[in-house]
Amino acid sequence: MADATTVPHRAEVEHQVRRLVYERLGRPVPKSAQAPNPLLVNVSARHCHLTQEAVEALFGPGHKLRPMKALYQAGQYAAHESVTLIGPRSRVISNLRILGPCRDLNQVELAFTDAISLGFDVPVRASGNIQGTPGCMLMGPAGFFEMPEGVIRACPHVHMHPDDAAFYGVKAGDYMKMRVGGPVGVTFDRMLVRISPDFKLEVHIDTDEGNACGLQPGTPVELLK
Amino acid sequence: MADATTVPHRAEVEHQVRRLVYERLGRPVPKSAQAPNPLLVNVSARHCHLTQEAVEALFGPGHKLRPMKALYQAGQYAAHESVTLIGPRSRVISNLRILGPCRDLNQVELAFTDAISLGFDVPVRASGNIQGTPGCMLMGPAGFFEMPEGVIRACPHVHMHPDDAAFYGVKAGDYMKMRVGGPVGVTFDRMLVRISPDFKLEVHIDTDEGNACGLQPGTPVELLK
Repeated sequence: MADATTVPHRAEVEHQVRRLVYERLGRPVPKSAQAPNPLLVNVSARHCHLTQEAVEALFGPGHKLRPMKALYQAGQYAAHESVTLIGPRSRVISNLRILGPCRDLNQVELAFTDAISLGFDVPVRASGNIQGTPGCMLMGPAGFFEMPEGVIRACPHVHMHPDDAAFYGVKAGDYMKMRVGGPVGVTFDRMLVRISPDFKLEVHIDTDEGNACGLQPGTPVELLK
Repeated sequence: MADATTVPHRAEVEHQVRRLVYERLGRPVPKSAQAPNPLLVNVSARHCHLTQEAVEALFGPGHKLRPMKALYQAGQYAAHESVTLIGPRSRVISNLRILGPCRDLNQVELAFTDAISLGFDVPVRASGNIQGTPGCMLMGPAGFFEMPEGVIRACPHVHMHPDDAAFYGVKAGDYMKMRVGGPVGVTFDRMLVRISPDFKLEVHIDTDEGNACGLQPGTPVELLK
């Protein structure tokens, strides 16, 4: 975990270098390079966020999630632990990754393709807004945990520091557009803006959205108000 | 099959009724209702088009595809017959639907989600433009058929009659945008225009694209130049 917090992300280094190169060459800095931070777009595969209570029901009393891979947002990680999700038609997804640290609610985030294959009719929701959403059963090595609600398709969203929000001229809860170039060419018209001093600029889309726009490393992306 | 050619599609009836209602009420007819034809958006699940030679290799000498369900484009149908697709890592998709009638080339159309699960690295191509694309093995009840190339992700596209092309001001090979409303909100920026006097106005997107934009019956859609 130490590396992730001390070594800057490749995108951050590239962003600084790009800006310096423009300045050295005495050329006007394009808008994307003027931004306080680089724009990272990450495709979130299906995953869940769990309470400590749920983790203990699934993995045993006193069990703590073990970080496997640091995520771009500070302190967030993919855990070694994964669970089996049992859907309404007894269909199953194995190895549903848990993202840590534990939260104060249980939430499963699926792409529509996952949801349809499991037999769920999931609504598009902002993270945390789970009232009235379908529930499911989770299975771990130490037992089951029933979620009465919390299965959603996460609304495509962008995490922002207040500096980024000032640069783009948006506030929390606004929607922005994100234009993805390349051979397919898709614009996401309702990208929910989430702002916190703890956030680094990062867009999260799900696997359906990532596949639909054919996102690859190097595909041009831009955020538009 | 008779129904499909003699009974107008629900969308066509609705389109006529909508226009008549505006006229009766003496209200200005909105642009979408002025269009010569209604806009249908259909999500194409993975499928293949085969030559008669391939059908005979897979289903036996002299075998003819049997129409199961008429598609919106005149004369096109989903066949009763389906095949098993064997990918590069020996992973398999069963029940890959064959669309008829037979063509003069063999082509498998997958969404990226399908392609990734099979281990294919498929390019985005217009239908028929298969040179240099990956191949695969197909298996049917009477034998195997090897496709040296032809596995693609179809470029999102719109079929148009020349009347529609005149209304939208586009020509064959142009790209249009399609804006999909609803809770997700996605604009497809590169919708390839295909024109033929035999075509009815219809957009084809794949399952990833349909899932990404959350397309449901009643979701508002519009074609933009």
